[in-house]
Amino acid sequence: MSLEVDRLIALEDREAIRELIARYGPLADCGDAAGVAALWWPDGVYAIAGFDEAKGHDAIAALIEGPEHQALMADGCAHILGPVSIDLFGEEAVARGHSLLVRRKASGFEIYRASANRWKLKKGPQGWRVVRRDNAALDGTTVARSLLSGSSD
Amino acid sequence: MSLEVDRLIALEDREAIRELIARYGPLADCGDAAGVAALWWPDGVYAIAGFDEAKGHDAIAALIEGPEHQALMADGCAHILGPVSIDLFGEEAVARGHSLLVRRKASGFEIYRASANRWKLKKGPQGWRVVRRDNAALDGTTVARSLLSGSSD
Amino acid sequence: MSLEVDRLIALEDREAIRELIARYGPLADCGDAAGVAALWWPDGVYAIAGFDEAKGHDAIAALIEGPEHQALMADGCAHILGPVSIDLFGEEAVARGHSLLVRRKASGFEIYRASANRWKLKKGPQGWRVVRRDNAALDGTTVARSLLSGSSD
Repeated sequence: MSLEVDRLIALEDREAIRELIARYGPLADCGDAAGVAALWWPDGVYAIAGFDEAKGHDAIAALIEGPEHQALMADGCAHILGPVSIDLFGEEAVARGHSLLVRRKASGFEIYRASANRWKLKKGPQGWRVVRRDNAALDGTTVARSLLSGSSD
Repeated sequence: MSLEVDRLIALEDREAIRELIARYGPLADCGDAAGVAALWWPDGVYAIAGFDEAKGHDAIAALIEGPEHQALMADGCAHILGPVSIDLFGEEAVARGHSLLVRRKASGFEIYRASANRWKLKKGPQGWRVVRRDNAALDGTTVARSLLSGSSD
Repeated sequence: MSLEVDRLIALEDREAIRELIARYGPLADCGDAAGVAALWWPDGVYAIAGFDEAKGHDAIAALIEGPEHQALMADGCAHILGPVSIDLFGEEAVARGHSLLVRRKASGFEIYRASANRWKLKKGPQGWRVVRRDNAALDGTTVARSLLSGSSD
């Protein structure tokens, strides 16, 4: 029995991680700053290459409430993530994948930014939360590529 | 035993919902109007903000067979969905996520439309089907944002 | 008991296939040619409509190491896949879905290519690997559409 339960838990863990990450885009694009922040651990980090790291719920919520994100929302924006590849290590995990920031223009929509993401996650009594999300624009330099590489962890 | 079976069923339900929604884009882009319609319940609704609601299989199939969709297919188009966040409530569920309509131009491709989607789903003897899909372009107004918000349901 | 184990295995198979396909984009965009090739069986095929088929690990790795892919990486690129619809047939499977190739321009990003994909997969002692991936640009012709159609298999 315990073998099957272990396998069930592994599937539940992967499902919970995928769900957690899938919530980011909808929460960001409806402007739910507290909801976005709650995806992270209280001391979690959202690190966007080239910017100061945001550490903790208040700092992460401030990214959503800040003028840059509010301007994107006023134009119309979609933070769309690609599928994530997930490596489970017991109660910790690493997920890798792309994200697109699509922004409405006067006519049509543009891809404002295409990025690489590496998510470090940890499971606690209330489930999986983000320890650290690294994001870097895919601009031809090695910063973003290293986030997508299995060997970079 | 029953606890584990309940957990297995919850995973199967989430997998079935993700599969159902993942079928939409490929079916739409190969022009399979009956296949698209069959994702919905017979009295299901596909509601695109700013247009009349399509209710029932014939009306939903007519969207695929209609001149606008056929013109998109003649140009070359991709209805690409982002990951969905799924809330399960027994035999009912709500899923939220983005969609992109990518259209081929004379040179290259453009994002013709970026939208928010909320799917209401229900399980029956033959599995999960769509009760209602709401779709609205992410144009900076609150209509689309409310579809992505957890509190709007 | 065996019924539940069968259902568990079916979920694990679908999860493994989704994970396998989700690894493609990150591996391609960080230039891990051997990692990309290892997603396929040793005699696996990657067939891009309009080009010679790449058969076997060396040929598939050569696509990543070749001048076209390296130029994309130097510009900055994202091979982003949409969700896949998966049909399981015991130890074989077919998955269908879209892919976008996003490329950085002097200013911003463009969708360089939007494609249809059909993946044939097979399970072996080391898990699921790709038997054949067919890819065709969504250019309005029937080649790409047939890859997305359930009846084309």
